[in-house]
Amino acid sequence: MDAKLRLSSEHSCFGGTVAYYRHDSEVCGGEMRFSVYLPPQSRAGKVPVLYYLSGLTCTEETFQIKAGAQRLAAELGLMLVVPDTSPRNTGIEKEDADWEVGTAAGFYVDATRPPWSSRFHMFSYVTRELPELVGRNFPARMDREGLFGHSMGGHGALVSALRQPGRYRSVSAFAPICAPMRCPWGQKAFGTYFGPDTEAWRAWDATELLRAGARLPHLLVDQGTRDKFLAEQLKPELLRETCEQTGQPLTLRFHEGYDHGYYFVSTFMEDHLRHHAAALNA
Amino acid sequence: MDAKLRLSSEHSCFGGTVAYYRHDSEVCGGEMRFSVYLPPQSRAGKVPVLYYLSGLTCTEETFQIKAGAQRLAAELGLMLVVPDTSPRNTGIEKEDADWEVGTAAGFYVDATRPPWSSRFHMFSYVTRELPELVGRNFPARMDREGLFGHSMGGHGALVSALRQPGRYRSVSAFAPICAPMRCPWGQKAFGTYFGPDTEAWRAWDATELLRAGARLPHLLVDQGTRDKFLAEQLKPELLRETCEQTGQPLTLRFHEGYDHGYYFVSTFMEDHLRHHAAALNA
Repeated sequence: MDAKLRLSSEHSCFGGTVAYYRHDSEVCGGEMRFSVYLPPQSRAGKVPVLYYLSGLTCTEETFQIKAGAQRLAAELGLMLVVPDTSPRNTGIEKEDADWEVGTAAGFYVDATRPPWSSRFHMFSYVTRELPELVGRNFPARMDREGLFGHSMGGHGALVSALRQPGRYRSVSAFAPICAPMRCPWGQKAFGTYFGPDTEAWRAWDATELLRAGARLPHLLVDQGTRDKFLAEQLKPELLRETCEQTGQPLTLRFHEGYDHGYYFVSTFMEDHLRHHAAALNA
Repeated sequence: MDAKLRLSSEHSCFGGTVAYYRHDSEVCGGEMRFSVYLPPQSRAGKVPVLYYLSGLTCTEETFQIKAGAQRLAAELGLMLVVPDTSPRNTGIEKEDADWEVGTAAGFYVDATRPPWSSRFHMFSYVTRELPELVGRNFPARMDREGLFGHSMGGHGALVSALRQPGRYRSVSAFAPICAPMRCPWGQKAFGTYFGPDTEAWRAWDATELLRAGARLPHLLVDQGTRDKFLAEQLKPELLRETCEQTGQPLTLRFHEGYDHGYYFVSTFMEDHLRHHAAALNA
């Protein structure tokens, strides 16, 4: 194991192990944290890797505690890798002042605008540095990667896959932000991380990337109808419209009565893990 | 629904509903909180009730977030009722000063020693006031109650059932305190809530109640071998010894490598819910 990888804690869970790590990230210029679930199958050989990108205010722990994913990952033989949602304690002024930008709100982009551009490189972190670290230190089949996420992290999964055609065998999202250029969360974050020139934003917006011709594996998206962010922030109708116009295969399901939180995510976790396993174990 | 029952929030989950309530408790002399999971079957008729008593530092939310129980409760048609672990904001001096007594450490006893005796009546709350409230306000089959818990709450489940012979159809525990009179947690709590006369403690110690002749339905207990509280606080060997001596049926399972937390609890939750369902749905 890399000397720079520091184990914070580990816990037996469904025959495998949940473990928490810290390390000095080169692309983020400071300490980053992530968690890993190793299924029992990983003791006998390498297993596919499924990355999960979390939403605003979350940490690398939220998914491991609340999503109820380990039971299925143990059954299906999937490694789960969950990064934190941003760099922390960067010293950037007001990094903790607003829950919608800065700490725990990295949006999985590489910021280009100072001061954020010094540290907030979450896209490079989750798509390059973290996978390289995982490949070197864990029994991971790096030719079999899947990607999913929730809310801000659901959009992060879409964009990360759209920017790297062919890399991920499977992609899905729970209640993703679908068109950040057309919602307040995205406009605030992109203005903060990229500045006012909206032309530069297009390379980080899922619907814009689809329009520009990027494609994903068959996409699964679940959305609750009582999600308080649905109409103003998430806008799945824009994703559906764009997928129809561009021929991107999409299964978009609305679930009556479900809200935005992990009671919703955990309910449909099994469907997502089976969606990924079908591609990753094929 | 009782006017005094106040809904804090509710969330769709596995086809049913997780809901959080507050109310003015008579037996605890102030506000108490609890959570309920209603399975889908409860829309068509009354369902059995399974109470879960949580451990030190927990709230009525911990189990609902971390235990992964709703999936199985939805399959098996069980209502889950989870009280908070103590009264809060009682004004009792130093109620928050020590994580092992006072707030979130009610031990499911009726305190007799001032100042705690004014408010800390968790036994009467979880075995009388809360079930009456549940019976009046939810589609509960009150002739079919089961009881389980974790750590402090595992012991609370054992004692609550031992003190009410024949009431609960099913009982189980995760990593329970087994003999509070013989461990530091129990000695501190019982000294605090009952005073120095240890004779009075016997009515609240599971192994003492078993020795005095009380019996439970066939008891299921799971325990991790890497639980840091195992040797000093939990002492399952004392429970096994007492059950052997008294003829109390016990299935005590040790799980290699598991610790004290909810990664352990969630791993074996399915076995416990099936244990309860076998009795409650019979």
